[in-house]
Amino acid sequence: MPASHSSAPPSVIHLHPADNVAVAAKTLARGEKFALSGGSLTAIGEVRFGHKVALAAIPAGEPVYKYGQVIGYASRPISPGEHVHSHNLHLGELHLEYAKASQTPPPPTPITGRTFDGYRRADGRAGTRNYIAVISTVNCSASVAKYVAHAFDQSRLADFPNIDGIVPFTHHSGCGMQFGGDMHQTLNRVMAGIARHPNIGGYLLIGLGCETGAMGYLVQQEQLLQLDGGASQPAGAPLILSMQDQGGTAKTIEAGVARLVEMLPRVNDVRRQPIPASEIVLATECGGSDAYSGITANPAVGAAADRVVATGGISILSETSEIYGAEHLLTRRATSVSVADKLIERIEWWKGYVGMFGAELDNNPSPGNKEGGLTTIAEKSLGAVAKAGCTALVDVLQYAEPPSKRGMMVMDTPGYDPASVTGMVSGGANVVVFTTGRGSCFGCKPAPSIKIATNTPMYQRMVDDMDINAGEILSGVSVDAMGEKIFDEILAVASGKPTKSEKLGIGEEEFVPWLVGPTL
Amino acid sequence: MPASHSSAPPSVIHLHPADNVAVAAKTLARGEKFALSGGSLTAIGEVRFGHKVALAAIPAGEPVYKYGQVIGYASRPISPGEHVHSHNLHLGELHLEYAKASQTPPPPTPITGRTFDGYRRADGRAGTRNYIAVISTVNCSASVAKYVAHAFDQSRLADFPNIDGIVPFTHHSGCGMQFGGDMHQTLNRVMAGIARHPNIGGYLLIGLGCETGAMGYLVQQEQLLQLDGGASQPAGAPLILSMQDQGGTAKTIEAGVARLVEMLPRVNDVRRQPIPASEIVLATECGGSDAYSGITANPAVGAAADRVVATGGISILSETSEIYGAEHLLTRRATSVSVADKLIERIEWWKGYVGMFGAELDNNPSPGNKEGGLTTIAEKSLGAVAKAGCTALVDVLQYAEPPSKRGMMVMDTPGYDPASVTGMVSGGANVVVFTTGRGSCFGCKPAPSIKIATNTPMYQRMVDDMDINAGEILSGVSVDAMGEKIFDEILAVASGKPTKSEKLGIGEEEFVPWLVGPTL
Ligand SMILES: [Ca+2]
Ligand SMILES: [Ca+2]
Ligand SMILES: [Ca+2]
Ligand SMILES: [Ca+2]
Ligand SMILES: [Ca+2]
Repeated sequence: MPASHSSAPPSVIHLHPADNVAVAAKTLARGEKFALSGGSLTAIGEVRFGHKVALAAIPAGEPVYKYGQVIGYASRPISPGEHVHSHNLHLGELHLEYAKASQTPPPPTPITGRTFDGYRRADGRAGTRNYIAVISTVNCSASVAKYVAHAFDQSRLADFPNIDGIVPFTHHSGCGMQFGGDMHQTLNRVMAGIARHPNIGGYLLIGLGCETGAMGYLVQQEQLLQLDGGASQPAGAPLILSMQDQGGTAKTIEAGVARLVEMLPRVNDVRRQPIPASEIVLATECGGSDAYSGITANPAVGAAADRVVATGGISILSETSEIYGAEHLLTRRATSVSVADKLIERIEWWKGYVGMFGAELDNNPSPGNKEGGLTTIAEKSLGAVAKAGCTALVDVLQYAEPPSKRGMMVMDTPGYDPASVTGMVSGGANVVVFTTGRGSCFGCKPAPSIKIATNTPMYQRMVDDMDINAGEILSGVSVDAMGEKIFDEILAVASGKPTKSEKLGIGEEEFVPWLVGPTL
Repeated sequence: MPASHSSAPPSVIHLHPADNVAVAAKTLARGEKFALSGGSLTAIGEVRFGHKVALAAIPAGEPVYKYGQVIGYASRPISPGEHVHSHNLHLGELHLEYAKASQTPPPPTPITGRTFDGYRRADGRAGTRNYIAVISTVNCSASVAKYVAHAFDQSRLADFPNIDGIVPFTHHSGCGMQFGGDMHQTLNRVMAGIARHPNIGGYLLIGLGCETGAMGYLVQQEQLLQLDGGASQPAGAPLILSMQDQGGTAKTIEAGVARLVEMLPRVNDVRRQPIPASEIVLATECGGSDAYSGITANPAVGAAADRVVATGGISILSETSEIYGAEHLLTRRATSVSVADKLIERIEWWKGYVGMFGAELDNNPSPGNKEGGLTTIAEKSLGAVAKAGCTALVDVLQYAEPPSKRGMMVMDTPGYDPASVTGMVSGGANVVVFTTGRGSCFGCKPAPSIKIATNTPMYQRMVDDMDINAGEILSGVSVDAMGEKIFDEILAVASGKPTKSEKLGIGEEEFVPWLVGPTL
């Protein structure tokens, strides 16, 4: 029963075909008749904007579905057209029961024949862009990395039209940390993930020399090899520069620029070619959410993510601190008990982590949320988790860990946008979709970020930064049709169509590795 | 008994006039005679490079002085010329006794009549530079802040010769944190400290709009007022721009550039004037230490810091994680029990903080340190703490807290260079001295950083980055004479002499606020 494709503003939004409730897109008066595709219903009582209305009779104890997911159970019999909220819906066993891998969805109907024009790398992976990375291994070499990368303006790259740019990757750590500890290992995984990213045609590592995060250890531990570019080095050796070896700032900048000049022809020597859509690695993110996020952009991204998975591709959900409250649904959807256990282990880690600082994870609907129509913690968390669509949870990744399976997976990251996306991109995501209600102007090189507005007024006000207006769902476009549009845009962008944030040159400052632990 | 000023390489270095040991500058053979100013002594046994030799008889139980500080007590009688190490020196009561404010040094002999040519600000404070700051309140506006600041190249500033530059201050936080929590408060203190810094003639705050670290709260809580510049705003109002209000990236960049264009004539309208040396706020830091740090550059900086304090100025020691082990000496030097208690409280906080991650603070001399001549934890920690000279500890500051007293004080920061210096500069330091053995190429706008090499080979290899060669101490310049040279350089740089890192354009990437707590 998908929502209508007509252009008349709908009274309710049916978020997923499996749902037995819809969300009021405007306040329905008691006795008001509202249209659904294939029929109509009458509101038994008033149902305010954002609140749920039953589409069918739901016997007591039976599940209530929203986003194609169980958000709780009827606490008494619910009639079609009745308002669904705290008085007749409760969390039930979702409170307690992980029910690991008990409701693993079947694989989606395959989507075949879809391709994008990408770069086939030497290791077989598919790139959507072709950048050169100048990676600063410690903050002490960050300025040098910037100067090296920025020495190449557009005129200097004019002879190399297949190179999208030279990007400095700088960060705030690399020393003042325990050697070999978690922070060190995480940072190395991030930096190696950028060096090896399929959107990186060649890279240069620049360090100071005396830092804890030694370049030699990074190269050895992460088995870094220069796959493309690097003519001046023995085949396969990474390009590294130490400022203390070179004799300081100016000499290292000079040497770095010379290395890149040698690298340019080789990195430029690539051509886009048709690649199956199954090689999309999609990162999904929301930032600056609003009351529309959970009923327009996020479920539409979920519909797009389901399509990526249906092609055989990968879709990554992150933001563990916002998954909290919906983990009981994801454990049910896991492909195995061990995948479910990995998620539970991460949720428990987060409880301990925030507890160390005297805080706690709490996604419970606030009085304002309840006023707005959100009944249960599962429903509230699903507003963000809806980006993961409805397919099975196939794996749970560490921060910046490269996927080794195909399908929908969780990566453990904070909800904080730049840290979350940096993790997914470092793990190999080659396209990002980013939903925003308030209007975030995010980008994250070397991956393109497609920004999806949740509402039309913000889309219009910030159209320079927004790629897609999911607010059209409130004017009658179905969630599924918007998902299709986003999926098409993912393939177009993967093929080289520039996103708004790429046109604006955003995406260097937003490289923010998540680093947990004491800075010493 | 200061070391000789002659150019002949000395056999031993007498670090401080009060010391009853010297450090071997080369290995002394058994029976070798070595010169001291005003006499000579004979080594009773072999004393290797870096090890200590007694200059006088030290009865059992009496203190051993190095850096003008007690590093332990003789565990048996020590003769002049005898090797002093674990066999005859132990930590004694320094293990246990804080002896708060028991040995407060008397005020140093005042130094009068010294001045620098600085900028007198409307609030009375003294600037050493005249920058404009574009402060990004959240990572989501960092790219915009960079684009606004970098729109002004040298040619565009040619008509405003009194402006040193326009600096973007960007960071990795500002959202994904608890509102009003420690991380939020600390970040606000840092950003307000930059906005109000005496080296900042005018500033612009740029945020996204929906971030936890709201601009309105920052402005209100920190009582930000635009002191200089800001013609387009009501008098006293800070200049703020929200990307969501402006309509996105491009419009905010345009608006930001326009605001700065209006600000330029007013910020340029300043002149340097003689200002008493007592208005120096000196930040001291070491990074990339080596075996020479504790015997050349750090004690020489201590001698310079003592001079700053003797003029009535402020000298800040930070790096709490490296103070650990010397805190018993600083508590003795405190001006009051309550100042000593503030330091102890911070040390205890650090133990708990690193303990949360299963680590511990441990500055105990390693077998390699002992091999190199370091006997006690107090002595090892003093190698870094020597930068604080020998005056009384007058206060202990929170991270980025502005000093409210004059004299030598500790600010609680990590040892990690960019985080440590960012705290001191945000607290109002107007000159930084930075010692390095391995060769750090640090800078931290808006304050100039004077980099001091610990040894001549590194100085020569990295002379593009190093301002002063304290390795000359190993060729016969006394620690005190080197301290005088550094003090002179502090006043010259405060008067506008550019440092090496300023010439190289270093100091934007190194703005690294220390943020403790969970990223959500
Ligand atoms: Ca987010
Ligand atoms: Ca299509
Ligand atoms: Ca940065
Ligand atoms: Ca340091
Ligand atoms: Ca002098």
